[in-house]
Amino acid sequence: MAAGGEGVGIVETRYYTFAHKPHPLEVECGKTLSPVTLAYETYGRLNRDKSNGVLVLHALTGDAHAAGLHEGDKNPGWWDNMIGPGKAFDTDRYFIICSNVLGGCRGSTGPSSINPETGKPYALDFPLITVKDMVNAQRLLVDHLGIDRLLSVAGGSMGGMQALQWAVSYPERVRSVIPIATTATHSPQQIAFNEVGRQAIMADPNWNEGDYYGRELPAKGLSVARMVGHITYMSDLSMNEKFGRRFRTCHSHFSFDPNFEVEGYLQYRGENFIKRFDPNSYLYITKAIDYFDLANGRGLQEILRGVKARFLVIAFKSDWLYPAYQSQEIARACKRAGVEATYAELNSTWGHDAFLIEIAEQSHLVSHFLKKAMAAV
Amino acid sequence: MAAGGEGVGIVETRYYTFAHKPHPLEVECGKTLSPVTLAYETYGRLNRDKSNGVLVLHALTGDAHAAGLHEGDKNPGWWDNMIGPGKAFDTDRYFIICSNVLGGCRGSTGPSSINPETGKPYALDFPLITVKDMVNAQRLLVDHLGIDRLLSVAGGSMGGMQALQWAVSYPERVRSVIPIATTATHSPQQIAFNEVGRQAIMADPNWNEGDYYGRELPAKGLSVARMVGHITYMSDLSMNEKFGRRFRTCHSHFSFDPNFEVEGYLQYRGENFIKRFDPNSYLYITKAIDYFDLANGRGLQEILRGVKARFLVIAFKSDWLYPAYQSQEIARACKRAGVEATYAELNSTWGHDAFLIEIAEQSHLVSHFLKKAMAAV
Repeated sequence: MAAGGEGVGIVETRYYTFAHKPHPLEVECGKTLSPVTLAYETYGRLNRDKSNGVLVLHALTGDAHAAGLHEGDKNPGWWDNMIGPGKAFDTDRYFIICSNVLGGCRGSTGPSSINPETGKPYALDFPLITVKDMVNAQRLLVDHLGIDRLLSVAGGSMGGMQALQWAVSYPERVRSVIPIATTATHSPQQIAFNEVGRQAIMADPNWNEGDYYGRELPAKGLSVARMVGHITYMSDLSMNEKFGRRFRTCHSHFSFDPNFEVEGYLQYRGENFIKRFDPNSYLYITKAIDYFDLANGRGLQEILRGVKARFLVIAFKSDWLYPAYQSQEIARACKRAGVEATYAELNSTWGHDAFLIEIAEQSHLVSHFLKKAMAAV
Repeated sequence: MAAGGEGVGIVETRYYTFAHKPHPLEVECGKTLSPVTLAYETYGRLNRDKSNGVLVLHALTGDAHAAGLHEGDKNPGWWDNMIGPGKAFDTDRYFIICSNVLGGCRGSTGPSSINPETGKPYALDFPLITVKDMVNAQRLLVDHLGIDRLLSVAGGSMGGMQALQWAVSYPERVRSVIPIATTATHSPQQIAFNEVGRQAIMADPNWNEGDYYGRELPAKGLSVARMVGHITYMSDLSMNEKFGRRFRTCHSHFSFDPNFEVEGYLQYRGENFIKRFDPNSYLYITKAIDYFDLANGRGLQEILRGVKARFLVIAFKSDWLYPAYQSQEIARACKRAGVEATYAELNSTWGHDAFLIEIAEQSHLVSHFLKKAMAAV
């Protein structure tokens, strides 16, 4: 039985379209989008006073399908081990919402969507978007679902950035925040890894200045970008445990073909990525997180003053992409700003991927935290 | 006055050609090369009993030009801060030799060299080479220079791997070894970063299966490879100190062009790399270090038994590409094998680059170690 079978069962992605003319969505760079669609899924039931809504936010390459199974699929949603009856995000207690981000390519409006002005995909005519823009679009979905105040917003990595932005942008609408394995501002090292991915995509002649829809895709460039990403999501130790120096073939022959297991794995993951991800979305979303700076040039403590939500900040010791010190800074700034914050640093060898894999302790923390938040409603 | 001015002054690269037919150089994969040229430089004077020879070994993209200035050049050799009168590798005391590795592109025989069989560059007809092959070629250069036993072999990163291989391959010919910021076996994470670089090069259509000489070069692919490399050579902290989140332009406009300083730096370094490095050499040399496994499937302790050299093993705390634990393993295995070893872990925020930059303590250690080794001759 697939993991999803013990969980929320068969689910469907739904679509909410808004920002119809003459009321377009204005994005931070000053441009507008109209209309805008967000793909989303929900699990569990909204209670009578609409106080049990929990918004779960995905990372760079995630989507709205966080839990359960799509009809005919074998693999459950990306956080199925965390969402379901009796799980951390307990669908017997809470109404869980997950939407694909603005700029994405998994049902929400992004660079691969049709630009109604031209009848062709936006490509690079899509406006540059920010984490704040993603959150503003989500807010309209939450309005649509009739929820005034979310019990919690939670997410790892880029999902954590959105959670932080929610708390700052909409302090009246969030009771609690769970930023996991994330940062309040992207560091130069984090920017640099993303820039390598972008340069790899843009170096692919098939990228063609973003105009590749209906033609050959920049699959090789995207593959290299994904390979870099995967290395940063794992840890030195987890790669040692998973691959060691094992060869894929039975003897060690010399060749440029990938013959270490780790090479084959990365190539396989890289080459398959094109099937589910739009290279332009990769450019737009990585740029959004590189621009992410919650304090926006001011002090983090200052920007958090006035935030009403309580925080559960979770980091993983072996995560070197979003190192624990960045989570500590968030927790410290919360405390200085008078915002209630619990900080937990979990032992895990899985690196950044831990928030998707190492869920025992994380589940315990989230479950307890949400119950406390619900009791305070 | 350039840094080189205080050092060994004006130097020239020399060339030693050997392995003429019918005595080709046999490389580990079973193929042969004939003839073979090594570009090399020397600094200081060989003493009467030829006991003061120190072989300095370069890293992935280094060359024979380790110290001093080439006529008309402004920038000194890559380890000029370590080599010269009164410096760590004191040219008043020692005869320093540095050669470009086999497979390189800076004067030594490599894939961009002319294949005498065809009159055209070898390209992918160049045999796959290993760190052991590099060392075997260097041994012939040392023979040519009339040195029976080297006082020391020293190098950082890939240079450290060669130093280790020297001690194991030629125990009678090495009195001491200084492996710096290196490893006895390449880890899957280290392999993975190199594989990203190789895939980026091979994804560039100009690479053309390695056959690009005299045509347009796979500059974009090589640039992406170099960008990944640079990130791994720095540390999170050193990138923060060097770049922060500063923009290159006076205001933060949204664009896919590199507008963070860190992006501009990486692009600049990436794009310029094609001027001095052959993409095929990048493929061959990274593959050689990925295959590097000093113990060759046996125990490190076992392979070090019988090694006569004493060791000075140096690591840097902020080096996450060649983390200190890998150096500790070398030092530990030495001790278990009855090989005299000193281990030093230096504080530095420079990451892997520290062995090229953070030279005060390193100089002190090397200088003291070499004096002791010389006194024992």
